[in-house]
Amino acid sequence: MPRIDGSRLIADLKRMADFGRYKTGVHRPTLSEQDVASRHWLAERMRDAGLEPAIDGVANVIGRRPGDGPRLLIGSHTDTQPRGGWLDGVMGVLYGVEVARAFRDDPALSGVGVDVASWADEEGNFLSFLGSRSFLGELGEDEIAGAVSRDDGITLPESLARAGLAGRPRLAIEEGRYAGYLEAHIEQGGYLESERLRVGVVTSIVGIRAYHVAFSGTQNHAGTTPMPIRRDAGVALVRFCNAIYDRFEALKGPRTVWTVGRIQLEPGAPSIIPGRAEMVLQFRDADTAVLDRFEAALLALGAETNAAGPCPVELQRTSNTDPTVMDDRFQAALAATAEQHVPGGWMRMPSGAGHDAQIIAHRLPAGMMFIPSIGGVSHHYSEDTAEADIVLGCQVFADAAERILRQAG
Amino acid sequence: MPRIDGSRLIADLKRMADFGRYKTGVHRPTLSEQDVASRHWLAERMRDAGLEPAIDGVANVIGRRPGDGPRLLIGSHTDTQPRGGWLDGVMGVLYGVEVARAFRDDPALSGVGVDVASWADEEGNFLSFLGSRSFLGELGEDEIAGAVSRDDGITLPESLARAGLAGRPRLAIEEGRYAGYLEAHIEQGGYLESERLRVGVVTSIVGIRAYHVAFSGTQNHAGTTPMPIRRDAGVALVRFCNAIYDRFEALKGPRTVWTVGRIQLEPGAPSIIPGRAEMVLQFRDADTAVLDRFEAALLALGAETNAAGPCPVELQRTSNTDPTVMDDRFQAALAATAEQHVPGGWMRMPSGAGHDAQIIAHRLPAGMMFIPSIGGVSHHYSEDTAEADIVLGCQVFADAAERILRQAG
Repeated sequence: MPRIDGSRLIADLKRMADFGRYKTGVHRPTLSEQDVASRHWLAERMRDAGLEPAIDGVANVIGRRPGDGPRLLIGSHTDTQPRGGWLDGVMGVLYGVEVARAFRDDPALSGVGVDVASWADEEGNFLSFLGSRSFLGELGEDEIAGAVSRDDGITLPESLARAGLAGRPRLAIEEGRYAGYLEAHIEQGGYLESERLRVGVVTSIVGIRAYHVAFSGTQNHAGTTPMPIRRDAGVALVRFCNAIYDRFEALKGPRTVWTVGRIQLEPGAPSIIPGRAEMVLQFRDADTAVLDRFEAALLALGAETNAAGPCPVELQRTSNTDPTVMDDRFQAALAATAEQHVPGGWMRMPSGAGHDAQIIAHRLPAGMMFIPSIGGVSHHYSEDTAEADIVLGCQVFADAAERILRQAG
Repeated sequence: MPRIDGSRLIADLKRMADFGRYKTGVHRPTLSEQDVASRHWLAERMRDAGLEPAIDGVANVIGRRPGDGPRLLIGSHTDTQPRGGWLDGVMGVLYGVEVARAFRDDPALSGVGVDVASWADEEGNFLSFLGSRSFLGELGEDEIAGAVSRDDGITLPESLARAGLAGRPRLAIEEGRYAGYLEAHIEQGGYLESERLRVGVVTSIVGIRAYHVAFSGTQNHAGTTPMPIRRDAGVALVRFCNAIYDRFEALKGPRTVWTVGRIQLEPGAPSIIPGRAEMVLQFRDADTAVLDRFEAALLALGAETNAAGPCPVELQRTSNTDPTVMDDRFQAALAATAEQHVPGGWMRMPSGAGHDAQIIAHRLPAGMMFIPSIGGVSHHYSEDTAEADIVLGCQVFADAAERILRQAG
C-alpha cells in the first residue's frame, strides 16, 4: 500500500504558492516569469521523486518513471487564473508527485508506477488546454503561432522564446505506455461541503454549448417615439432572456446550469432607444440529451421571436463541447477506495468545469476525483480547502491508483 | 397680417446647414468652430431683419427689436446633436428671424414686434439648456467653470475664450419686456405624420424621471455553481426589468414612454456569474400623476425584490424634471391660427422631448408649435421635413404671434 506523507505534500503546495503569491492566492498566468520559475522548481521535485523530468516546447512539464511495467499518467495544471487560488490545478499535479514518491518508497510497488504531467495553460492565458492538446497531437503549429496572451498581449512563440523553450520538441503520447489517466482537483463548487462529504468520484465532465444572441431594432429618441411604434432591441433582449430562464427551468436536469454572463445595449445612452442588443448565453450538462433539449428550446424561442417581431434575433453557436464520460473501472476503483477510507463519506458527481482529463480521455481511459472547496469558491484568491481534506484525498487517490494498476497488471 | 417669405426662409435654413454639414445633416456642437461661425452669421441675419443683435458671454445670440410696444420673445437653439439633423432647433430660430422680417415689412404691425434668441447649448455639449438658464439667472458661475465638452473634452471657459466671448456680459431677461415666449420645433416623433396633420399645438412638455438601478449578487464560476445557490445579479436585473415593463404597461397614460437605455453586467464574461448588474431606467409623461404612479410601482418592485432576495437592489433617482404646461391663451392662439390655415389639419399634443421653452416658462407665459418630422426621425442626420410644411408652419407661427400681440396690446 502506498503511504502518502501529508506534511510533505502540504509543504510542496505552500512552496508552490510562493511563485506569484497574490493575497491568500496566486497570480501565475502561463509563461509569466513566476510560472516559468515554478516549472523549473516542479521539474526538480519530479526528479527527487525518482522521475525523469522534461519541460517541452509548449511548457508542459512531464516526469517519466524509468523502467517497465504498467503505468498510470497523473496530471493537472500549475498555471492559475488571474488572481486565482493556490490549489486549482496545482494540487492535482503535486498529488501526482506525492503518489510517485509513495510508490517509489514502497518495495511492494516496484513493478508499477506513475508518470506525472503539468499540462501547460489549462486556464487559457494563450489557449485553453494548450498542453494536453499538444501532448495528444491535436494542436497545430498555426494555432501556436497565432496565440496571444490575454495577460500581457505577448505572442506565445515570443513567450516561449523568453522562457528559453523555443525550439524544444513537443512531447507526445507514447502508444501503449499507459493503463490510463487520473486527475485530482478541488471541486470548485459546494456540493461536497453542503453534503458534508469528503471525496467526489467524477462521473463525467459536462458538455458546454454557448450562443451569441443578437437583436436588431431601430435606434430612436426615447422621449418622442411612442411605445406602440418602437422597435426596442433592449426590450426584445429582456423579454427573450426572461423567457429562456423560465423554459430552461422547466427542462433542466438535476445539475444543469445556464448563465447569461454578458449583455450589451447599443448605443447605451439613457435617452436613446437601443437599436441593437446582444447577450452571451451558455449552458452545461453531463447529459447530451439535456444539452439537446436546451438547444432546441433556445432555437424554438428564436423562431417564435422572429415570427412575432418587431426585433429579429440572430443566434450564433460559439461553443460546443460534448460531455466526457469517465471510465467505469476507474470510477469503481476511486469509489471502492473512498468507501474504504470514509465509509458513506463520498459521492459520485459530474464536473461542471472543464479539465485536461476531457482532452486526455480522447486517447486514454480517464478518471477524476474531487475534494471539497470551502464555500464552493474558486477562480478567486480566497479559494481554499481544509488541509485534512487535501491529505485524505491524496491517500484515496494513491490507493485508487494502486488498485487500477494491479487490475491492469 | 405678417406675410412670411417661404423661399427666403428655406434659403436661410439651407445656408445655416453649411456650417458643419455632415451627410444630409449637421454636426455642430456648441462652441465648435462651425458653431461659432454660424452664430456670427445668425447675428448678421438678425441685423438685416431690423433687430439689434448681440452674442453674450455664454454664446447666446439675441436680437432685440428697437422701440416700444408689446413684444414676444421667440427662440430655440442652433447647436445640434452629434451628426444630427438640419432642422432640430435651427428652424425655430430662423422662424423667429423670418417673423421679425415679416413684422418689419408690414406697416400695420409697426407698433408690435419680436425679439429673437438662439439659446446656447440646448443639446448639452457642456450643459443642457445652458443659454436659457443663464438668461433667467438660473446658472451659477461655478457651473460654467466646471463644464467640459463631451465633444472634445475642452472646458467651457476655454471654449468661450477661443470663441472670443470670454468676459462678455451674460444677457438677462428684462422685467416686463415680453408678453410671453414662443418656440417652434420639429415634432421629432411620428404622431403628426401618422395622423396626416400639419401642425401640433403643444399642451405641455413632459416631465422626466430617471433611475439608476443596481443589483448586488455573488460572482462565481458558471460551471460549478449550482443554480439553487446562485446569487446571479444579471438574472435579478432581467427579472426586474421584465416585471417593470409589465407593470408600466398596465399603468401607462395615452402617451407615457419608458426606456431602459443601458444595461451592464460585471465582470461581463461568458463563464462568470455576474456579481453586479446595473441599468438606467427613464420614464416621461406630461402628467405628474402618471410619473408618480410609475415611480411608486418602481419603488414597490424594488421593495419586493429586496424582501424576496437573493440579490438586493438599490434605486437611485438621477433625474427629476416636472412637466411644464404651456399657456392656455397661447395654445388657443396657435390653435385658432392653425384651424384658419389648415381646418382640421392640426392637433393638440404634448412634447416628449425637452425644449428651452420649459426653462423660459419659469418666468414667461410660453407656447410651442410643432410641424411634422418625416418618419418621426430626429437626432440623426437623416432628419427632415417637407418644405411645404416648413413654410406653412412659419406662416401659422407668425399669425399666432400677431394674434397674441394684439391681445396683449
